[in-house]
This record gives sequence, structure tokens and C-alpha cells, in this order.
Amino acid sequence: MPGKMATAVAEAVVARGLTLVPVGLTGATVEDESIDVSGVAVRLVRPDEREATLSAIAADDPATMVVDYTHPSAVNANVAAYAAANLSFVVGTTGGDEAAMRATVADGAASTAYALIAPNMGKQIVALQAALEAAAATFPGAFAGYTLSVTESHQSHKADTSGTAKANVAAFSALGAPLPVDAIVKVRVPADQVGEMGVPEAALSGHAFHTYRLVSGDGSVRFELQHNVCGRSVYAEGTVDACVFLAQRRAGGDAVRVYNMIDVLRAGEMS
Amino acid sequence: MPGKMATAVAEAVVARGLTLVPVGLTGATVEDESIDVSGVAVRLVRPDEREATLSAIAADDPATMVVDYTHPSAVNANVAAYAAANLSFVVGTTGGDEAAMRATVADGAASTAYALIAPNMGKQIVALQAALEAAAATFPGAFAGYTLSVTESHQSHKADTSGTAKANVAAFSALGAPLPVDAIVKVRVPADQVGEMGVPEAALSGHAFHTYRLVSGDGSVRFELQHNVCGRSVYAEGTVDACVFLAQRRAGGDAVRVYNMIDVLRAGEMS
Repeated sequence: MPGKMATAVAEAVVARGLTLVPVGLTGATVEDESIDVSGVAVRLVRPDEREATLSAIAADDPATMVVDYTHPSAVNANVAAYAAANLSFVVGTTGGDEAAMRATVADGAASTAYALIAPNMGKQIVALQAALEAAAATFPGAFAGYTLSVTESHQSHKADTSGTAKANVAAFSALGAPLPVDAIVKVRVPADQVGEMGVPEAALSGHAFHTYRLVSGDGSVRFELQHNVCGRSVYAEGTVDACVFLAQRRAGGDAVRVYNMIDVLRAGEMS
Repeated sequence: MPGKMATAVAEAVVARGLTLVPVGLTGATVEDESIDVSGVAVRLVRPDEREATLSAIAADDPATMVVDYTHPSAVNANVAAYAAANLSFVVGTTGGDEAAMRATVADGAASTAYALIAPNMGKQIVALQAALEAAAATFPGAFAGYTLSVTESHQSHKADTSGTAKANVAAFSALGAPLPVDAIVKVRVPADQVGEMGVPEAALSGHAFHTYRLVSGDGSVRFELQHNVCGRSVYAEGTVDACVFLAQRRAGGDAVRVYNMIDVLRAGEMS
């Protein structure tokens, strides 16, 4: 903290009526002593206090979950510290060495922590992506002869093509309608985002809009799929779901100790 | 024949470069002796000539496939005649006694025919429906808290709600976003179909447009799915795919002798 994503998760924790431990890890150069999260003063902890703080939290309540949305360069040292304190953790940071994160809580590791690691915490986005991959595996070539076009809009400073769009295009390719990644249209100009994609003005600084169109060879059949996200709420909510899921796995003493968002989604059948 | 759907299939057979046997079953009261299909004169055969005609076709080429898009009141007698002639058949007629159709080609039945019976021959529509059902089974409740709205447009004389829309709404319900069937909005007024749904004027007499919207509780996430069909081409193409699939099963002497469109879709992996 005070990163926007971690802060959004903390706000979602409070909104759900769960207990927010008012402590957040931060970088060595951050000057603030605390930040306000939904009226709660969250104390910011530098790296040199990290291990002692985590040990104290674990001593107070060993079932506490840690959420990590830090920089890729910081995530592995953080994860090693969570595991050393036997604190379970949810990692939404993309990048870093995931194999090393997994190893800290793998069978035979010294830690008793549980971990959930996922590059996308938006449950419904993850469900859509997994459903498309499953459809491609089950019905390969079902859309042969169709032409695919894809347009995605993100905040103007995002340089690369949407990873979700690329993953879904791979699934459409297996379904018979391939598209080169460089043919995915990136909309980065605010006026176009509002005019062409229908992005609300308020979401220009943070959104993820995707439109996929599939048209049959003779033009008589059209499929269109959109998934449009404003802000960070869906990721924050999914992260809290992940925490609740992981706490249940830990409380139940499950043998598996590393999970991802697909596992959270599948667990819906338990409700 | 000369029903519109059967005629569209015959046209698709010719367009694919397959051999169209220029014979079509028709009702007792039809006066025309033949109809033109893509320049081919197709002889129309009344019920009293049905058995003899089918026997002659089977004698000429036992691998000939029969396609049935007749009235529900006629389909079972037809199917019994196809099976008696050991001719394999594809049934797109909805209604009729499907169990009886299946029994004519079941293990131990006298016939050596193969059968493919499906209420919807549109491969991609079937794939979508199956994918939604699979997603609902795998990720139950993933869209809990979302609000679903559904609008469908069909030609003005269609009185009932789209069966595809109802099936997909059942899947969305299992995904956590239920909707009563009577809340599905039916658009049947041509001006609204053009203005609100974007139906081309030329397709007002035959189309199937569907729009599903899922909105998160806080409104920050929206999913939209459309599948819009003009005319009958997609069903005709799927029917030809079904014939090709069934001919391959028969040629291979497969033990299973009754199939549906899901089987055709799964077979995509063979290509």
C-alpha cells in the first residue's frame, strides 16, 4: 500500500463486514505513516519491519490472510516472509517468480501457509476465459469459416495489447476463427473510447472494455461478445472471494495448499 | 418439400458440390410434380409412392442420406419408412416422437440405418448453448449478484418465446443470474426489430436475434452477448455437416447409430 489495487481490496474487505487488520506493507521510500481506508487508519510498514510485523500478526491470529498487489520486483521477498510467518496469502501481483512462490508452500515446505496466486482476480472474466477455453477443447473448429474481429479499450497509458483479449483470441482460434494478435484493435484515445466503445467519462483513467465479433462466411450469422469493466471493484471483490475461499481451505486442513481463481469459481457449487 | 427449410438444405448440398438425389417427399395434396433447386428439377413424391421410392434410392446407393424437415405429424411415419429401407437419415423436424425415431435404429432393430436427430442444426448456436451449460455446471454461482436481461427478436408471426433464449437463461440462472422466462423481452414489431435490434429489412420475415446483458450489482461490470441469425443458411449448412458426419459414421461401421449436433461439433477435432 498505498497502491490503488491493494487499497481497493482493503475497502472491499471493510464493505463486506470482514475484519481488516490495519497494517499494510509499503516501500522503503514512502513517507506517509498511515493511509485512510474507509475511515480506518492503516499503518504502513517498511521492509525493515516486515518480518517482525508479520510475526506479530500471526501470533495474534494465525488465520489472517495477506493480500499482495505489489511490484513484481518485490513480490517474491514478500511471499517468502508471509510463508516464514506461516501466514496464508493471496497474490494478485502479475510477474515475479510464481514457481518460487509455489515452492514456499509446496508439500514438504517448512511453512504451513496456504496460497492463492492468480493473474486476474475478476471471477466473471476468469469464468468467461475458462469457458471459452473449454469450448475450444470440446468443439474444435465449430466456427470454421467465421471471421473474427476484436477491439479493446484501456486507459491511454496502457501500451501493450490486453492479455485477456489475447487469451480469448487463442480460444477463438482453436474454435476455427483465428486472428493475429497484431490485428486486435487497441483503442487508447479518450475521445474514441467514449464515442466508439461507450466508455463512461469517469472510467477513462481505469477501464477494460473488450468487444469480439464473429461473422459467418455469408454474413448471415453474427455473434458479439462484450466484457466491459470500469474501475477496480470486480478485481477487489474477486480478491476478497479468494481470501474467503483460502481461509476455508486452511480451516478445513485441505491437503492442497496452492490455488488459483478457477478453484474459487468451481467452489461455487458449495454454496 | 417444397418446404423452405428442406429446400434450403438441398441448395446447400448443391453449393457444397455434394450429390443431390433429385427426389423429395411431399404431402398428398401438393399439386406440383417437381420443384427447381439450384437449377435441378427435384421430383416430388406423395406418401403412396414413398416406400417404393426409398427402396429404389437405397438400391441405387445404400449410403444415401435422407433429410427430414417435415411437419411433426408426418415425421414418424417418414422415419419408419427410411429405416425400413435401411436409409440413414437426419431429422431437423421439431416435435414428433423422438423415442420412436431412435427405436427404429436402436441396437437390435431390424434396420441398419444411422440417424442424427437435433432440434437445432445451427452448429455455432448449439456450441454456444452447450458451452453455457458446461460453464454453469463447472462454475455455479460465478455471476451471483449480477442482473440478467434478455431481448429476442423473431419474425412477427412467432408467438412463443425463443427456445434458445429459454435454454440459455436456464444456464445463466445456474451461473447465479436467474431471470423468469416471462421477463424475456420478445420483439415482434418490425419497426422495433429494425430500430432497436438492428435486424436488416430483408430478414424481417425470417431471423433469430438474441441479446443477453449481465450487469454487476454496482454496475461497474457489464457482459453482453448477441447471437443474430438472418435466414436459414446456418441451419442448412449445419444439416449438410450432419449428413457428412453421419455418412462417415456409417462408412466406418460405428457401433453407435443415433447422434445429435453435439456429436457433430465434437467431431471437429478429427478435421
